[in-house]
Amino acid sequence: MISKEMKKLVEGNSAIRAMFEEGNRLAAIHGPENVFDFSLGNPNVPAPESVRQAIVDLAQKEDPLALHGYMSNAGYEPVRQTIAESINKRFGTDFSARNLLMTVGAAGGLNVILKVLLDPGDKVLTFAPYFVEYNSYVANAGGELEAVPPQTQTFQPNLEAFEKMIGPKTKAVIINTPNNPTGVVYSEETICRLAQILEEKQKEFGTSIYLISDEPYRELVYDGAVVPYLTKYYKNTIVGYSYSKSLSMPGDRIGYLVMPDELDDAEDIIEGAAVANRILGFVNAPALAQKVAALCCEEKTEIDFYDENRKILYNALQEYGYTCVKPEGAFYMFLKSPAEDEREFCEAAKRHNLLVVQGRSFGCPGFVRISYCVSRDTVVNSLPAFKALAEEYQLI
Amino acid sequence: MISKEMKKLVEGNSAIRAMFEEGNRLAAIHGPENVFDFSLGNPNVPAPESVRQAIVDLAQKEDPLALHGYMSNAGYEPVRQTIAESINKRFGTDFSARNLLMTVGAAGGLNVILKVLLDPGDKVLTFAPYFVEYNSYVANAGGELEAVPPQTQTFQPNLEAFEKMIGPKTKAVIINTPNNPTGVVYSEETICRLAQILEEKQKEFGTSIYLISDEPYRELVYDGAVVPYLTKYYKNTIVGYSYSKSLSMPGDRIGYLVMPDELDDAEDIIEGAAVANRILGFVNAPALAQKVAALCCEEKTEIDFYDENRKILYNALQEYGYTCVKPEGAFYMFLKSPAEDEREFCEAAKRHNLLVVQGRSFGCPGFVRISYCVSRDTVVNSLPAFKALAEEYQLI
Repeated sequence: MISKEMKKLVEGNSAIRAMFEEGNRLAAIHGPENVFDFSLGNPNVPAPESVRQAIVDLAQKEDPLALHGYMSNAGYEPVRQTIAESINKRFGTDFSARNLLMTVGAAGGLNVILKVLLDPGDKVLTFAPYFVEYNSYVANAGGELEAVPPQTQTFQPNLEAFEKMIGPKTKAVIINTPNNPTGVVYSEETICRLAQILEEKQKEFGTSIYLISDEPYRELVYDGAVVPYLTKYYKNTIVGYSYSKSLSMPGDRIGYLVMPDELDDAEDIIEGAAVANRILGFVNAPALAQKVAALCCEEKTEIDFYDENRKILYNALQEYGYTCVKPEGAFYMFLKSPAEDEREFCEAAKRHNLLVVQGRSFGCPGFVRISYCVSRDTVVNSLPAFKALAEEYQLI
Repeated sequence: MISKEMKKLVEGNSAIRAMFEEGNRLAAIHGPENVFDFSLGNPNVPAPESVRQAIVDLAQKEDPLALHGYMSNAGYEPVRQTIAESINKRFGTDFSARNLLMTVGAAGGLNVILKVLLDPGDKVLTFAPYFVEYNSYVANAGGELEAVPPQTQTFQPNLEAFEKMIGPKTKAVIINTPNNPTGVVYSEETICRLAQILEEKQKEFGTSIYLISDEPYRELVYDGAVVPYLTKYYKNTIVGYSYSKSLSMPGDRIGYLVMPDELDDAEDIIEGAAVANRILGFVNAPALAQKVAALCCEEKTEIDFYDENRKILYNALQEYGYTCVKPEGAFYMFLKSPAEDEREFCEAAKRHNLLVVQGRSFGCPGFVRISYCVSRDTVVNSLPAFKALAEEYQLI
């Protein structure tokens, strides 16, 4: 009796649940310390002490009516102003409270902006490999997602294919850098070329094409990698941010959208986003988490911890003969499957108590995603299993 | 460039904004203490002290990884179990964690369950007057909302009209008791008859018709009124609850859905709701607020404060000659407009610095909604203005 769309999604969901249950099953047999679960994106670094302190201070000092009451659907104005100023200071932008809308995480923000922009049948482009939930987010707003095929040598976006896929119904493009699942940071050169293509296509079709930059991993970069701030490269850019990873608080569901004044139809988009936040049932981003985000927005998570995990794992996997683009951001790496069908490799990995995610879940078969936001022990103790698996595939 | 649907909603939104701005304009001229804003549903009673204490304790004592991390999309299992047991104890039901899904307020819950149930073109019925956002929630899931005309003598639902409006495409019915905007509690007699009609129509059409009970005001009742627990009257009932009013924490966005095992296709609905929570971008209800709700779920807000507001205002309005069904719940009353067009009456009220909401915003022209979740001073000091307005309309 549930809807046909949900019926399909529920069936698809069983794969995720199966993996989770498999992890539990293996842990029961071999002990949890002998099962190496690299399948989830749940930060292993705790939220900074300042987050704890901010929560305690707010609860003890703020008027409960102000702390727990309704506010504007866009969020508390002082919170938005504080975060806008922090962005301006770091990136040389010129935003104010009116350009920000506080959201229920990045997922909430994407749903809000897609609801604002899309008419039924509008197309949205993204680059494979990509976070597969984009399909649902776009469909929720009546649009259709199309994935540009990957460039598997570098996992920089395939701009030649992209250029050919843009049409008069292309309303938006979603990019995600640092990228889930590859860990690749799109270079400034890539961004400049992307912006140029979009400008040309807007002229060609007489349309506005909005670039939606999904940035939950912005703060997680290594080796001095720079993540360009996209509003400076392309006028019709909307940024979606989340504190899930930068403050290790994914359960709290707090993020924001940046909607610059330079956008085509900025007024309508900004007001539309507040209305969409309401009518989609978010109403507003969680009140307490908004205030915590403003107080802690310049805090950093322990990048060094993830970096060390990255180095240990990447170096070992290289040594064992695996092929992988070196990740410069996020906490993922995207390994080439030694088996042609990566589902076979995932099954083989399970026999070594290793849980990794098949690339086709990101629109990119032939690869697997490894999430290294796990404990150091998990990384270190998993190495013999990765090595044995490499031997099985005669990589060594 | 924004979507046509959003363009219309943004235009509609300007009425709400205009009212808000009018309030600010009047406050600037006459002083905020001389403007009587009865237009909003933002609780004026602060959250109980136990909410503050729960937040401080959780922040100080819980492992931050557990407090701020991801959990199941349905919410923390111990939280759901605690709340299920609290419901069982009060209402003699038999729910467990698996029957509950923690949601981003009641609005989030309604969007989740409608997404699960509705195929494009499915119909949802509700009873006028009703919370107008239901239109958007149903449309978000591809359905169409139809409002049963009101029975303005009692504001109990018009079940004769309802019976005739149910058809083979009717997938769900939303009811809201205690009701926004009338404050009326649907009687047990009403509920029994409603259940009977639904049973008959299910048989007639060979369909499942789900009753969605939107219950943010369940705890706010006066004069000993009883709000029947609907799962006990009709098997295909789903309850949507929110702590926004009962714990005065609307900004925190925390509520739940109850999906009984007795539902037709209960398994699919329960799993579908977790998937819908994820793909709609909620992902999970805010983590900290979930734990606060579990710790405080048996707390009560200061019902007596609202009750006193209700009595003062209702008695005075009666004395001045206004017509109004005596509200037994929520913090609203729904006054018959002395002018045929209630918009004219709203304008006249503004000239007395009184802000009330036009009934057509709830699908019921000819009435106005008064929210009495305001300070005692606002209630008491507004009475001369209501009196002067009554004299203007020669009610006295």
